[in-house]
Amino acid sequence: MQITSEQIEQLETRYRANLINSLGGFKSVVLIGTNSATGNTNLAIFNSLFHLGANPPLCGFIVRPDVSPRHTMQNILETKYFTVNHINEGIYENAHQTAARYDASISEFDEAKLTRQFIEGFSAPFVEESYLKFGCEFQQKIDIEINGTSMIIAKIVSIEYPKEALMEDGYIDLEIAGSLAGNGLDGYHRTEEVGRLTYAKPNTWPKKFSLVTNSPEEE
Amino acid sequence: MQITSEQIEQLETRYRANLINSLGGFKSVVLIGTNSATGNTNLAIFNSLFHLGANPPLCGFIVRPDVSPRHTMQNILETKYFTVNHINEGIYENAHQTAARYDASISEFDEAKLTRQFIEGFSAPFVEESYLKFGCEFQQKIDIEINGTSMIIAKIVSIEYPKEALMEDGYIDLEIAGSLAGNGLDGYHRTEEVGRLTYAKPNTWPKKFSLVTNSPEEE
Repeated sequence: MQITSEQIEQLETRYRANLINSLGGFKSVVLIGTNSATGNTNLAIFNSLFHLGANPPLCGFIVRPDVSPRHTMQNILETKYFTVNHINEGIYENAHQTAARYDASISEFDEAKLTRQFIEGFSAPFVEESYLKFGCEFQQKIDIEINGTSMIIAKIVSIEYPKEALMEDGYIDLEIAGSLAGNGLDGYHRTEEVGRLTYAKPNTWPKKFSLVTNSPEEE
Repeated sequence: MQITSEQIEQLETRYRANLINSLGGFKSVVLIGTNSATGNTNLAIFNSLFHLGANPPLCGFIVRPDVSPRHTMQNILETKYFTVNHINEGIYENAHQTAARYDASISEFDEAKLTRQFIEGFSAPFVEESYLKFGCEFQQKIDIEINGTSMIIAKIVSIEYPKEALMEDGYIDLEIAGSLAGNGLDGYHRTEEVGRLTYAKPNTWPKKFSLVTNSPEEE
């Protein structure tokens, strides 16, 4: 089945939002925790987090001017630090609820029934119920004029992880960490590993890794 | 368990790449198909695709200067059009293989044993074995100076989808479409739906949608 450019333009707003959001594929769904300049905690769900580089360790995400989590950007610009907290099956409803349009004076931690966690040496609030989370330091905001969004770029400065999820080669098994994958604006999925594959080289074919030994399986 | 900023900096390169790539959470893994100016087809796997906006329908992805898929960016800048093809369990090894560093004159379609598909009215090659795929028109390149990467922004101009995966509200169920989720640089996961949740509003609590009726379930 095919949908053309003309048809896309004529779609009803909400239908188009569902459709186009689904096309990006499975994505990370995370909670971003911040402090306002006056010390109020804020928490908002984002599904546009992406890896930008490992050295220096950088990530990015997109902020929309027209939706609720705009408090997040303001807080980051004012206080420079934020947390990224992966969502697990025990808190996905709570995480979703942070998308409601609360006033800036109301903390989504309270409204979504999640627990603030403060880790020594880091000012922004983590989510205690999250298993895999990291602290970030703001680096740059890039405005994307074509649709009025902004990209926030940050350096990863502290990582909290469940011991059993970290493999000996640095890979974190997100399934063991309990992280969910997002679908569109409102779908949440658990996962089941198909395989890890060996480094791709010309004239060979990828093989599955064994997660136990971290070495290529005999086949 | 905790890893500090100082520890991150001292990690061995490959270990750090695995670790930082995992932190972004589950992500889409897609094949991007292009033509070179001289008509050679190119195909490369990317895991940084993100949703940028629904109106106009926009997506973005990150191109790294130091890895193989740089042919992709050159082709997009020269020919303006590209395809994004979701990866399913039947072709995830083939998709992974496109990451090998082939010479620009060699087509990854051949080396990774995937089939070029040309759809009327669109110049760039799709992947026939992909179930969910879309055609894009280049809009803008934004250079990210902090680490020498670039962001490509494109408009979605044509969508090919399996009929049974499109819900009546425009949501595409990626699980029904067979799309996989990525973990780090080399992990591939199938998914199992936990739930779709109703639109978040203050003073209510999200409920699960029924995928059959697309209406909130009675609870």
